[in-house]
Amino acid sequence: MNPVELIRKKRNDDSLTREEINFLIIGYTKNKIPDYQFSALLMAIYLKGMSKEETAALTDAMLYSGKIINLDSIKGAKVDKHSTGGVGDKTSLILAPIVAAAEVNVPMISGRGLGHTGGTLDKLESIPGFRTDLSLSEYKKVIKKCGAVLIGQTKDIAPADKLIYSLRDVTATVESIPLITASIMSKKLAEGIDGLVLDVKTGSGAFMRKTSDAVNLANSLINTAKAFDKKVIGFITDMNQPLGNYIGNWLEVYESVKVLQGESIGDLLELSINLSGAMIFLGGKASSIKEGVEISQSLIDNGKAFEKFREMVKEQNGKISYIENLEKYPKSKVVEKVYSNKTGYIKEINTFGLGMTALELGAGRMKKDDKIEPKAGIIFYPKIGDKIKKGDLIAELHCESEKKLNSVKENFLNNITFSKEKTKRQRLIKKIID
Amino acid sequence: MNPVELIRKKRNDDSLTREEINFLIIGYTKNKIPDYQFSALLMAIYLKGMSKEETAALTDAMLYSGKIINLDSIKGAKVDKHSTGGVGDKTSLILAPIVAAAEVNVPMISGRGLGHTGGTLDKLESIPGFRTDLSLSEYKKVIKKCGAVLIGQTKDIAPADKLIYSLRDVTATVESIPLITASIMSKKLAEGIDGLVLDVKTGSGAFMRKTSDAVNLANSLINTAKAFDKKVIGFITDMNQPLGNYIGNWLEVYESVKVLQGESIGDLLELSINLSGAMIFLGGKASSIKEGVEISQSLIDNGKAFEKFREMVKEQNGKISYIENLEKYPKSKVVEKVYSNKTGYIKEINTFGLGMTALELGAGRMKKDDKIEPKAGIIFYPKIGDKIKKGDLIAELHCESEKKLNSVKENFLNNITFSKEKTKRQRLIKKIID
Repeated sequence: MNPVELIRKKRNDDSLTREEINFLIIGYTKNKIPDYQFSALLMAIYLKGMSKEETAALTDAMLYSGKIINLDSIKGAKVDKHSTGGVGDKTSLILAPIVAAAEVNVPMISGRGLGHTGGTLDKLESIPGFRTDLSLSEYKKVIKKCGAVLIGQTKDIAPADKLIYSLRDVTATVESIPLITASIMSKKLAEGIDGLVLDVKTGSGAFMRKTSDAVNLANSLINTAKAFDKKVIGFITDMNQPLGNYIGNWLEVYESVKVLQGESIGDLLELSINLSGAMIFLGGKASSIKEGVEISQSLIDNGKAFEKFREMVKEQNGKISYIENLEKYPKSKVVEKVYSNKTGYIKEINTFGLGMTALELGAGRMKKDDKIEPKAGIIFYPKIGDKIKKGDLIAELHCESEKKLNSVKENFLNNITFSKEKTKRQRLIKKIID
Repeated sequence: MNPVELIRKKRNDDSLTREEINFLIIGYTKNKIPDYQFSALLMAIYLKGMSKEETAALTDAMLYSGKIINLDSIKGAKVDKHSTGGVGDKTSLILAPIVAAAEVNVPMISGRGLGHTGGTLDKLESIPGFRTDLSLSEYKKVIKKCGAVLIGQTKDIAPADKLIYSLRDVTATVESIPLITASIMSKKLAEGIDGLVLDVKTGSGAFMRKTSDAVNLANSLINTAKAFDKKVIGFITDMNQPLGNYIGNWLEVYESVKVLQGESIGDLLELSINLSGAMIFLGGKASSIKEGVEISQSLIDNGKAFEKFREMVKEQNGKISYIENLEKYPKSKVVEKVYSNKTGYIKEINTFGLGMTALELGAGRMKKDDKIEPKAGIIFYPKIGDKIKKGDLIAELHCESEKKLNSVKENFLNNITFSKEKTKRQRLIKKIID
């Protein structure tokens, strides 16, 4: 097989065979196919697409570029969740302990934040002592003991994905449904799961701004999961405003604990227990998503979900005193309250802009090696549809220097669009696909 | 400017500005934009195309990556011809002396053969002593003295093209009309010409098999030439059979001399004097192509064209005794006559196959560094429409070893398709566009 001929085939809109896709992925991973050929192929895939079968074959080739974790020694179902990322999206921290408390295992391998979105690993690492770099044997030990574990990607898992993602990032080939699908699914399938719940976000803070794109991606992910005989449910959820009110790493741990303790209600609770409900259903511990949601709520109410979170943090070396007493955590040096300069109904929120603001305050990274400040971020109160009066508290900006504050303060309120007329609230869960 | 954003723009089918195209070409030429980004851009251009304006801007950026030869000190018009390449296409050798004899300068920078097509430089170098590696000052001296010169590309001319062409070759992005246009025109415009005649070939031995593709390419080349204020005429000509009867380097010099001496008529003479006629017209020495054709024929008839060829060969250090006495040239060690095994009318000729056969006999290169054998090649007699009887002489195969002969002999006649019914002769000049 000749890489040029295979690039030409895809360029001409012909389908690649499983063998051809394997040849390309193995060749690229082993450094036999150079970057410049692979990037031409990526652009051809971006512009010509891939069939269901090609996408599954690509996922398979990327999956088998690394190890697949064998969790057969762990009793019970193993179910994970994947979100396509958003602003204030901290559901993993909430649903993992709920689902584990319902006796379904959650072997979760997560990522770091990049760009305007946060990452589960960065959030957890804001808890002093918390380790996300467990070895595979430690990973298995934790899941065996407490039913949930949250670690970072190891170099053994889908190494082809890491290489290909880096190349996509610099060749304008990121936003391709087959490439996104194979990237997500190759890593998730390597976890050794039985089922997967997908949270595909759409709106001003999501990678897929249009709902139709989100539905296409969800369908592609679902088709691929099914090609690997996995149980799967896909949610299309709103990301036109931050999820919950807290954006930033420790701030999000704080809000997650409040939800697990039953002290916070609203969109974050609603989405978390819907996703955990679906996971409990896929794990065979509920007869429907609805029953799974009820179980989830009761596990919050009876304290078992929070207790599981405490246990998980402890198993991964986190200092639980900070979880038990949230106020013990150090405060940001600079905390600025922002008040509304207008009266009206909230019509739109530039959620991408809020994510970028949190990043500039120190909560995220511009480049992969940047350090993050765990305390930095935004507490953002209003939701679309709210009536706001001039002088109402809109947000708190947390950071470590006046300089950082000043770089974002002036334009902060431009992230909100007001309307004189009443505006419609967003529907949180737009669609469930299975 | 950011290369990723510009790749994204082209990928999204937006037009790139002149400044953006310049940034990309300069960046790539100066090694600031890596191969993997440029190849993704090339694939996006391949699949999304380029407007007239973008193609002209790309040509301009590639042209100004190098030197533009200044021929202002040379009196009279300077007109060149470019052919997209074919089998047995030796018109440059014939038209350059004709046009120079008509007092229009022909400052020609040519290429080498690659794949199934021959190259003017390789043909000329089969003349003992002939130098194609003249310096720019020698180049100017020769054109000043005899009105025509034929040299190879120097590293000063459009260096961006050389880099980009190598990358296109290994990323399946060769057959793109804007990329082909910019590649051809950046080199031709660097010659300092006033006018250009294009010979865009179509058929079984051409890069553009379909006439519609050839017309599209011709229009793109013409638009670009006009954007640079050059006079231009485009011919769409047939390449469903070899041009003339001789294929191979010295064999083609031999046939060219025969045409220049008025001893060979047929398609090769017809096309050569049409192209030279158009060049003489563009150079202002004829009032129409038709008059230019008549002038060309008379310059053959009165011996001035051949005399000019002798002068040109001499100026470029070639031993003219071989031109004056063609039979002095050494003969091939192996000459095999091939006779027809069928009776019928010639319907189709696999001209690509004949080109590849000549290459295998030693007339061409598989890889850039391969050596060629100047004497090797094919004399191929039949034309489409001819009636052939079993036992008629079809071809002579010339090479230096029985081994080479045996590798092509068995399947040679498969390059011809016979028909029991009369078949139509090909129309040589399909279209003239100006």
